[in-house]
Formats: sequence, structure tokens, C-alpha cells
Amino acid sequence: MRLSRYYLPILKENPKEAEIVSHRLMLRTGMIRQQSQGIYSWLPLGKRVLDKVNRIIREEQDRSGAIELLMPTLQSAELWQESGRYDAYGKEMLRIKDRQERPMLYGPTNEEMVTDIFRSTVKSYKSLPLNLYHIQLKFRDEIRPRFGTMRSREFLMKDAYSFDLTREGAEHSYNKMFAAYLRTFSRMGLRAIPMRADTGPIGGNLSHEFIILADTGESEVFCHKDFVNFDIPAVDTNFDDADGLKAIFDKWTSVYAATSEMHDEAAFNAIPEGERLSARGIEVGHIFYFGTKYSEAMGAKVQGPDGKEHIVHMGSYGIGPTRLVPAIIEASHDDNGIIWPASVAPFDAMVINMKAGDEGCDKACETIYAALTKAGKDVLLDDTDDRAGQKFATADLIGVPTQIIAGPRSVAAGEVELKDRKTGHREVMTIEAAINKLVG
Amino acid sequence: MRLSRYYLPILKENPKEAEIVSHRLMLRTGMIRQQSQGIYSWLPLGKRVLDKVNRIIREEQDRSGAIELLMPTLQSAELWQESGRYDAYGKEMLRIKDRQERPMLYGPTNEEMVTDIFRSTVKSYKSLPLNLYHIQLKFRDEIRPRFGTMRSREFLMKDAYSFDLTREGAEHSYNKMFAAYLRTFSRMGLRAIPMRADTGPIGGNLSHEFIILADTGESEVFCHKDFVNFDIPAVDTNFDDADGLKAIFDKWTSVYAATSEMHDEAAFNAIPEGERLSARGIEVGHIFYFGTKYSEAMGAKVQGPDGKEHIVHMGSYGIGPTRLVPAIIEASHDDNGIIWPASVAPFDAMVINMKAGDEGCDKACETIYAALTKAGKDVLLDDTDDRAGQKFATADLIGVPTQIIAGPRSVAAGEVELKDRKTGHREVMTIEAAINKLVG
Repeated sequence: MRLSRYYLPILKENPKEAEIVSHRLMLRTGMIRQQSQGIYSWLPLGKRVLDKVNRIIREEQDRSGAIELLMPTLQSAELWQESGRYDAYGKEMLRIKDRQERPMLYGPTNEEMVTDIFRSTVKSYKSLPLNLYHIQLKFRDEIRPRFGTMRSREFLMKDAYSFDLTREGAEHSYNKMFAAYLRTFSRMGLRAIPMRADTGPIGGNLSHEFIILADTGESEVFCHKDFVNFDIPAVDTNFDDADGLKAIFDKWTSVYAATSEMHDEAAFNAIPEGERLSARGIEVGHIFYFGTKYSEAMGAKVQGPDGKEHIVHMGSYGIGPTRLVPAIIEASHDDNGIIWPASVAPFDAMVINMKAGDEGCDKACETIYAALTKAGKDVLLDDTDDRAGQKFATADLIGVPTQIIAGPRSVAAGEVELKDRKTGHREVMTIEAAINKLVG
Repeated sequence: MRLSRYYLPILKENPKEAEIVSHRLMLRTGMIRQQSQGIYSWLPLGKRVLDKVNRIIREEQDRSGAIELLMPTLQSAELWQESGRYDAYGKEMLRIKDRQERPMLYGPTNEEMVTDIFRSTVKSYKSLPLNLYHIQLKFRDEIRPRFGTMRSREFLMKDAYSFDLTREGAEHSYNKMFAAYLRTFSRMGLRAIPMRADTGPIGGNLSHEFIILADTGESEVFCHKDFVNFDIPAVDTNFDDADGLKAIFDKWTSVYAATSEMHDEAAFNAIPEGERLSARGIEVGHIFYFGTKYSEAMGAKVQGPDGKEHIVHMGSYGIGPTRLVPAIIEASHDDNGIIWPASVAPFDAMVINMKAGDEGCDKACETIYAALTKAGKDVLLDDTDDRAGQKFATADLIGVPTQIIAGPRSVAAGEVELKDRKTGHREVMTIEAAINKLVG
């Protein structure tokens, strides 16, 4: 992509309305734009990051055996009356009447709809286990949306729903998502810590929030320092191996971790003082086994191997992509701007032409741009006639992992400078060496 | 994907509510499911096709220089009051009040919002031309939604919006989309014919509907037979070459083509009788130059090279992915089911194990499945213990381009049978030859 043809509306000033760093940086870099209170457009730079986040989520959901579908945003009120949540859900549910005066709503979540799909299409235990997920817009009419897309009203959610014949099967399904989530966040450069969440009237211990640590986090969290060194499940994890997944779950729930709501001061204090970690965190995922709550109310059952009908056991598993993007920024930035982990960076590299119009600079930049693009890299070429200082500031601000700087003097010697955005490390090398290093 | 682990809720009977073949086949194959009137879930098989359609649309939009963003579904009424369309738009607009009683709406289109984004971020002609697009859900509260996703209330639309300093620039932008659309539909196995559409009070000749011919089309169309042989713009089309694009536009608008609304009986009759084509068609795209209609009303202007302010010229360009999928089926099916063009098929190949559990069959199927998957192919392996007749019927019904049939007898001889879904051609060959043929 050539910057001269791109749409990158960088703000020169820090926007006043931004209370946290990710909100400020997403506005400044032109990643997002507020359209109404708590409702955002994802501008091209932001859309690229969101796509990469979604791709990682999909790959890990697919790897775990979940199957993607796409449910609509608008739902009929009837379904929610069946489950009893239509009246129970408060003002956060956006209620709508269509032209026929039928009561509808903008889905805040999809338990009812997916249960309806299940009950009308699945009849036998032979179709189980089943885990259906989608990445779809949701709407929750928060009274105080804030922090940009960290807490917006219209937002994206990946929500998966598992169906099993038995409680044991449901636990296996739960552990699949548990492992998939650890992999998902890790691939985005985040260390997420699973923390027991309140299961309310459902009971049991099968509900976890995945929290990443960040100074600006919305909630206080308490955990053992050991989490920082726990191994992430490998790419070849066997998701059919119930015992293997259980071992991962056991390991990651073996030491203390709690949000303030679930905090147990005594248990925390039992950890040796040097090993306690008390910090702020951002919730980026939530998994929940809720048994037969919806399947019972809505009649979702299958014929078992015994020929009898069984109410299925369900769980739901959410990740918020539009919240993950600012969470990644909260965890990875400096005074100059964003520092993207390579896996979710909007571009892999940025080629900076220090003197657009100079024959040598143009040629060097075009050579590098063509070679990297051909190798499948996403490259942004700054071919504008902006001042050098502004170019450097923009490159640092948008946080592309590697900058390749081509100035007239170095290019005359057949060389360019590589700058690593994260470490600030600079290295001069030949054009060919630079290409080889990045194509690697 | 192994069918034993997949979610493919095939219906045994033809659904009574389906009036047209694509609706019937999409329901029967479990591609979609109606959730409310005119509101559908895309089940896994359908989602795969939709993704492939979207990918082709994106690739061709990107190739033409358009830039992707993502605007939200809900919009504030204020924007539409500015353009004057809030009152003008009828009951098809779904009007909503949020918890603060603010008037909102579910976007039926995005001219107002994108113009708002433009006016608040673009100040100079140097940022032009600019074409911003997104693929996002829309809602139009049709009084009579029907034909499945062909005419649904909640639907996906790719809508692009171009901004130019001059009328000439806008024409170039229009011709970029014109060529991109020809390529887009062609890649999906469709022959789309651009037909002049009504420009209403805007005037001029820069509005075209792209119509594909299908017996079940909603509208009557009239055109010259020559269209069938016109060349599609090549993959290396230079979108910066205004004259070259104009030549493509001129060629494709040189002979008669009109929907019934725009039909000119006398002009049509002037075509020699043997070269007239009178048929039914389905609209799959619409492009429209509307000049300064919205930029004037909403104050979208830039500073020109002359230092003065200029109201920008705009156009909008729509494609309906959720309508394209049934349109492709209307154009490509037989009595046994769907016949997917390879580019949008949910799977590239289907491996049919005629005797799951038989050592030889299992081994042959796993070998083929692994080799094709490794080569990046999307493969569906029927590893169920269904009867042979049912397996064949399902394979034909869902219309995957190539079937690889492994029965005990042929496998014992080291062979499998390949069946081409479209031609019905069958060929026996060694397992290795089958793999090589498909990986090709």
C-alpha cells in the first residue's frame, strides 16, 4: 500500500475525550472514529488490525474443532420470552419494533438463537459433541459507554456454544476452549490469566474470565507470579485427548488467581509475599459452563445411545475482538505510539522514502516494496513529500514492527537503515540484505 | 473437514415455503435457516460460500484501488436529517430509539455516514481520488421479504463510495468500479450484463445495474446477444489508465441492454431478430454517479489546486453478497442439486468413503484427505456410515466440484473414482494420480 493513495487520517493533536491511552492512540492514528455515543467506525488502519485479530481467533477456534456459522444481529423477542430472559434483561437490551409492530431486539448474545438452531436440526447423540461459533456484531445499550471500543455499545463478539450429551463431555468441550483461548491470546502477544468467575445460580467451578495485565485495566486482580512462566499449549495440542486437556486446565488453575469480585484475601495472603502479584487487568474473554439452563427451558434434547431423550449440556465462550484491539495497545505502547506485536500489526513493514522524487530513493523503495509484497508481506510505503520528522513520527505512532528508511546518502551507497519499532535498534545494511532479512 | 464432525443439517424433504430453486436448495443443503421473517442464519456450509464470495469481492475492490473500512450498523437519525432522507425514506427504514430516547436507525445504506467521515477528515484535493468501501450488514424492512436471502430484510452489502475533485475524475472512479464489477462476477462463474439504470433527478447516463441471466430472475431484461462474447477485463488491467478503462466502459455499453423499466422497444427492434436476447435477470450489483447530491447537502468539500474550496463529486457502488449466493445457484444447478463454480464452492473436493471401517477404504481416504489438505485444498471427507446411495445424493446435492469415491473393490486395486459434479464425467485412476490431478 502506498501512503499517497491510502486513507490514514492521523490527528495532530491528542483528542480531549480520550481517557485511556488505547483510546487516545486509536483516535490519533485514525484507526477508529466515533459515529454516535459508543458506536464506532473502524477506519482502514483499524480494520486491518481487527481482521488479523479475527483471523487468529478463527484459526484457534477451528483448530479446537469448533465450526463457524453466522447468526443475524436482529432477533425476535419470542425466543427470549421462551428462555425467560426477555423480561429479565434490563435496559441494555435494545428493543425494536419492526413495521409490522413485531417485537424484535438487537442481539446482546446468542444463547437462545443457537439453542433454537440446535433443537430444530440435531436429534441424535451421534452429532455430538458440537461447538458452533460466530463472529458477529452485538449491541448492549450501556448507560455509560467509554474508553473507545474497549466498552462500546455496538461491538464484535466471537461467541461459541458447545453441546454435549453429558456433563463429562461438556467438561471436555470446556477444556478445549480453555486451551484454545490460551493459544489465541498468546499469539497476539498477550499473557492472559484465567481467573475463576462467579457462576451464580448455576454453581460449580466452570467459569473463567481471561484477564490480561495492564496498568489501565478496569479491574483489580490478584494472582500468583507463576502464571508468567506457565507454558502455552503447543500448536499440535490434541484436542481429542480429554486427559491431556484436563492436565492443561489443572495446571493453569493450580495456583491462586482472582478478580476483586472473587478475591479471597486469606488465600492470597497464604502465597509467599514475593510471589504475589496484585495488579490491574482487562477482561478479554469469558468461558462458562451453564449446564442445562437453556436446553431445559427451550427443549434442546437428543436421543442417547440408550434410546432415551437427554437434555443437552451447554457452555458458552466469548471473546471481544473490538475490545482486544485496545487491550493489545494498552499492553504494548510507549510515549511515541503503538508497538504492534507482529501477528496483529496492520502492516508487517513500513518503507520510508526520505526524499520522494529522488531517483535513487524512489528506485530503492520501489525495489524493496515490490520484493516484500511479492513475498506476501503487508507493506506500507511512505512515498509522500512530508518532512522527515513527520514521517518518523507517523511511523512510530502507528507502530509497524519494522521501518526501512531510505535516504539519499545511504541509498547512494546501496544501503538502507532498518529500525525495530519495539527495541529502537537501528541497523544499516544493503538493500538486498534488508529484503532477505524481512522475507526471512 | 470430516463429515462425522461437521454440522450439515440436510433436509430430507423439499421445504414447502421455498418458491424458487435457490431458496429450496439453500434450505435443503442446510446453508441457511430462517430465524424471523426475512432474517437468516448462515449455517456452516452457507458461511463457507459467503466467505468465498466476499473474498473475491474484496480482492477486486482492492485491485481497483478502493480501501476497506467498517462502518457500524446503527446510525444516528441526525445524519439523515442533514441529507433530508430521514423523512423521505419510507417504512423500509428501521427506526429505533435507544435507552436515552435518541432516534437511531439500522443503516439501509451509508452515503450519509461516509460523507460525514470524509468531511471531517479530508481537507485537500491531494487526498483524492478516494474510494472507501465496507462489507457490512444492512436492514431494509421490506413489506414482503421472500426468496430466502435473495430478498431478505437483514442482508450483507458491499458498498463503496468514491470522492473526486471533478466530474472527469468521478467518471474515472466510476469506470474503475465498472471494470472491477465485470471481473468480480466473472470470477464467480457469472456473466453479468451492465444495463443502464434510471438516474432520476441526478440525470446523466452514469448508473448501471449488473444483471445476470437466469430463468427465475425477478425482472425482464432485453439485450444484444453480443454480450455473451465480450471480453472480461484482464487481471493486469491498469486501473490508473483512464482511457483504457473508458474503452472498456464504451465497449460494454456499445450495444443495447435494458431492464424493463428502461426498455426502448424501438431500439430493441432495431437489432436484427436473431441477435436479440429477451430473458429474465437478477440484479447483483448497482453503480451510480450522483455528483454533489450528498456532498452539497452535508458540506463535503476540499481545497483544490487553485486554493479554493470545491464540493466533491461522489458515486456509490453496491454488491449484495447474500443475494449473490442464491443468484449463483439460480445460474448453476440441476435436478440433483447445486453445481458450484470452483471459485465459490464450499469445498474444493469431497472424498467419499464407501465403506467406513474397512481398512483399505479408510487408509485410501485418509491418504487423499491428508495430501489435499496439505496442499491447501478445502476437502470434505464423508467418513460416516450412511448408505452409499445417501452419500452420493448428498454429494450431488451440496455440489462440490469434484467427488473422489473410494470403494472396497477399487481401493483393493489401488484405485479410486473421480466424478466431476458439473459434467457427470467419471474416471478411474490410481490414488496417486487422483491426488496429483486435484493438487495440479
